[in-house]
Amino acid sequence: MQLAGILHRPESEDTAILADHQVLMRIRTALTDIVQVELAYADMYLWQEGAPMQHVAMQKGLATQANQYWTIPINLPTNRAIYAFKLTDRDGQTIGYGDEGFFTDTAANWTVAGRYFHLPYLHVSDAELPPTWVKHTVWYQIFPERFANGDPTNDPKKCAAWGQLPVKRDSFYGGDLRGIIDHLDDIADLGVNGLYLCPIFTSPSNHKYDTIDHFEIDPHFGTKQDFQELVDQAHARGMKVMLDAVFNHFGDQSPQWQDVVKNGQQSRFADWFHIHGWPVGRDPQTGALNYETFATGAAMPKVNTQNPAVQQYLIDVTKYWIEQYNIDAWRFDVADEVDHGFWRKLCGALRQVKPDVYLLGEAWHSSQALVANGQFDAVMNYPLTQPILALFNHGLSLADYVGKTNLQLMQYRQPNQQVMFNALDTHDTARLLTVLNGNVAQAKAALTLLMLLPGTPCLYYGTEVGLAGGPDPDNRRCMPWQPENQDLTMRDFVKKLVTWRQSQADFLAESQLSWQIDGDVLRLTRQSAQQTVTATFNLGRQATAVTTNKIVLATGLTAENDLTLNGFVVSVK
Amino acid sequence: MQLAGILHRPESEDTAILADHQVLMRIRTALTDIVQVELAYADMYLWQEGAPMQHVAMQKGLATQANQYWTIPINLPTNRAIYAFKLTDRDGQTIGYGDEGFFTDTAANWTVAGRYFHLPYLHVSDAELPPTWVKHTVWYQIFPERFANGDPTNDPKKCAAWGQLPVKRDSFYGGDLRGIIDHLDDIADLGVNGLYLCPIFTSPSNHKYDTIDHFEIDPHFGTKQDFQELVDQAHARGMKVMLDAVFNHFGDQSPQWQDVVKNGQQSRFADWFHIHGWPVGRDPQTGALNYETFATGAAMPKVNTQNPAVQQYLIDVTKYWIEQYNIDAWRFDVADEVDHGFWRKLCGALRQVKPDVYLLGEAWHSSQALVANGQFDAVMNYPLTQPILALFNHGLSLADYVGKTNLQLMQYRQPNQQVMFNALDTHDTARLLTVLNGNVAQAKAALTLLMLLPGTPCLYYGTEVGLAGGPDPDNRRCMPWQPENQDLTMRDFVKKLVTWRQSQADFLAESQLSWQIDGDVLRLTRQSAQQTVTATFNLGRQATAVTTNKIVLATGLTAENDLTLNGFVVSVK
Repeated sequence: MQLAGILHRPESEDTAILADHQVLMRIRTALTDIVQVELAYADMYLWQEGAPMQHVAMQKGLATQANQYWTIPINLPTNRAIYAFKLTDRDGQTIGYGDEGFFTDTAANWTVAGRYFHLPYLHVSDAELPPTWVKHTVWYQIFPERFANGDPTNDPKKCAAWGQLPVKRDSFYGGDLRGIIDHLDDIADLGVNGLYLCPIFTSPSNHKYDTIDHFEIDPHFGTKQDFQELVDQAHARGMKVMLDAVFNHFGDQSPQWQDVVKNGQQSRFADWFHIHGWPVGRDPQTGALNYETFATGAAMPKVNTQNPAVQQYLIDVTKYWIEQYNIDAWRFDVADEVDHGFWRKLCGALRQVKPDVYLLGEAWHSSQALVANGQFDAVMNYPLTQPILALFNHGLSLADYVGKTNLQLMQYRQPNQQVMFNALDTHDTARLLTVLNGNVAQAKAALTLLMLLPGTPCLYYGTEVGLAGGPDPDNRRCMPWQPENQDLTMRDFVKKLVTWRQSQADFLAESQLSWQIDGDVLRLTRQSAQQTVTATFNLGRQATAVTTNKIVLATGLTAENDLTLNGFVVSVK
Repeated sequence: MQLAGILHRPESEDTAILADHQVLMRIRTALTDIVQVELAYADMYLWQEGAPMQHVAMQKGLATQANQYWTIPINLPTNRAIYAFKLTDRDGQTIGYGDEGFFTDTAANWTVAGRYFHLPYLHVSDAELPPTWVKHTVWYQIFPERFANGDPTNDPKKCAAWGQLPVKRDSFYGGDLRGIIDHLDDIADLGVNGLYLCPIFTSPSNHKYDTIDHFEIDPHFGTKQDFQELVDQAHARGMKVMLDAVFNHFGDQSPQWQDVVKNGQQSRFADWFHIHGWPVGRDPQTGALNYETFATGAAMPKVNTQNPAVQQYLIDVTKYWIEQYNIDAWRFDVADEVDHGFWRKLCGALRQVKPDVYLLGEAWHSSQALVANGQFDAVMNYPLTQPILALFNHGLSLADYVGKTNLQLMQYRQPNQQVMFNALDTHDTARLLTVLNGNVAQAKAALTLLMLLPGTPCLYYGTEVGLAGGPDPDNRRCMPWQPENQDLTMRDFVKKLVTWRQSQADFLAESQLSWQIDGDVLRLTRQSAQQTVTATFNLGRQATAVTTNKIVLATGLTAENDLTLNGFVVSVK
């Protein structure tokens, strides 16, 4: 038996609390080594008074490159449990596994409480269950400067013509909040029901990730009245609104940093940043900065989020937009580089003013340490979505794709997994269609795969009309509003896909996921007691025959039931 | 290569922050499978601008039943890092391992940032480093009702004669705070420098774990003036003071619960407990309680620590004894059954009023979820100490002892490991000497092993004079103060052991631990660059020859350098 591959971690993502008295138990083993896992559990106090131990077989779940996961949801008679695992390998050998490690599978050993893992007391509050609306949400991300120019009177002085290429790092086109309000019906028509807006606070740049004033709307974007109208109009259409906050660093034009530049150590903001020498600036000899920044440039001084005054200011900012404008969610930029202690304070404070607020952290890597434990509901799930692009670009084998995807899915508790923010492209990446070399069929297949995975998917504005774009700044092109510049077939497809996904939101959040690989054909199955959805993707170089029925979505399916290159079919039974 | 056994978890105990820019990196592999692990790391932004990747060989650390751990402390040039592992197996095969899982060891793969794990930004505040005084502390636990009767005027009405046996569950003997004050010199003489007092607040029982009033000293124990004197006198002797709080449940004689009993749903404390039906009590048919309690009895109603009013009350209690009496530490009873959200609030509040407060949770199992992440510095480390008893009782093989011990040591970050509360016996267990069937030589050896392990050791009052006692209530016998009732040889030994341990506190906190098993001889080695301490324990049935020099402690070592049964020797070079 490969003992080294067996692992269970109590009170972690291996014991996700789903509701009062309900836990999803999980264990990992080496691939193919173990053929059966049995879970034994009881309330320790009742068991010691004679109540029986319960036994249940665990179900084979997802597999990574090296490990097989086994899961089982259990309903506890009380909120306390001790539990241990009995594992059987291919040779029929058995072993017990609990808090002290492995033990010989003898009756005597199973009578010792110390052998068992403990779930001392299940408090559903500790589950920090994400707001239920999120798993019914498909997001639409807007980069406001490029979405629509609804009010030419607030345009920056030097504005390029709408849609003019190439997009430069310092281009302005005049997009604003009024433009978003004007097009809310278009957005709603797609079936999406969550708006994620990149930063809208006062800032000198077009991207506004270098905030000057967190309490004010950038004048080129409009007024607070405009924003109130946007939120109200979005809510009237059943859409949630998420804003974007940059708390890792401030812009160097912010009054706080400018005060530091001007007043040096005497500045009342001297302790708002991480400053190692005075006056702030570069060493004339080495060129090294004497303060911490985002990345390596000088323009975004890193904020000292351990300073209680800073903490209060940032909490006040985020509470303000919730309390005054009733926004529904916050996305936090570069969340991974900010300290966990601060996030615990901020997230706790926001959940007090709005218990169903959705709090999302930006990270580019797996981020168990940012999710739950008093922090975020979810992170931007690039490690889950980027392999989809590699898969369709033939940069990843089907087996590697499945292994990596499952590895990421297994990082988080199921309730968090259901609300992870899954985007194939954003303002920080090249656009989907461009990454896939303009292959629309592949883009449709990739979007379909995205929508079928656990998590809450996001469309980057323009994807629905075939907008292309390379890396920043080309990924921030103006939204084309002239029908002749829009791929309307793509739009129809996206609308159909999103509408179907919305109709299956609960099923796609809760149902089991499994994968089958057959040569170059990847098959994803989502299964509940009531329904099975199967998606078949042809990732090969030639057409392949498929057997399907009750098709709900398809691209590239011929009359002979052949799936063309990059074709896919989604069927329900 | 046994990929299934390879695991590293970013921002966990696998990446313990030791100080600004300093991290202790760790990875586990299958036992004996991997012969070399190399860590590659860099600041991602600087690396992307051309700075080189650093490479360092990891050191083979402790091994459990199934896994080998590898560790290396690194000093980061900045507070950001990406890192990945290169593993080589016995056959010379290599593989890369990072955030996306395993990857082929090709030059191209090592150039992709996504392959690496992330330590996005090291904030030393997130290390939540325990107070530095704790690792220099040897604790002495007192059960106040049984330690010494310094003031007969405050005795309970029905007091048994001091030392009378058998001890009954409801016995009173008259021990009090004055008795402790009177014997502070005796305690200090042992070399200990931390007092852990079982509960001292008003309660009807002798153990006082069923609190009535958290703001008052039990009148049979004395007054607040007595307590102030105790703390001041302890501090004057360089001793810290830790109190014991029971927040999982209240006594059913508490005014809060009595108000619930009297006023039912109208009680202002109705939401202070977990009550499922009214009036509170047992179902006449089934006998089931309609409220949650500790264990299964009726007398200790479980407190609703999710209620903000309860949270504030309990925070006020703990702040009060710190702010008014300057205590140094809190031990929290049944901490594992209270919600993590509450502990985060309470621990955060206490660290604000006393940054170097030591916060200790009671648990009987491995408790990663209670340590750090805004919660406790440490837990009561029974899973580490109980195997010591099994070892000396010949209930555990030497190999199993080492595997279990290492498994527990690997649960926590090194700074927490250094302050774990390690006790061979407490008011909740049978006494050391009795568990070891009165074998004093074994008891001395077990205490020596305890003192050599990472963590902060605790002596249960009376151990130093050979006090015996079976399970509760016999483990709470009166402290014998007549010299003829004390094992003074044992006391000399304990004093010598504690004094030596105190002289080596930094060394024993920081040095490497390793084990060698030679038949029935267990050898523990602690090693730093400056010094090596080796302890050799004869756990066999016959004497064995040992080679030693610079002996600092020994029992059972003959003139011929033979180690008798249960003998041990500690040497330094």
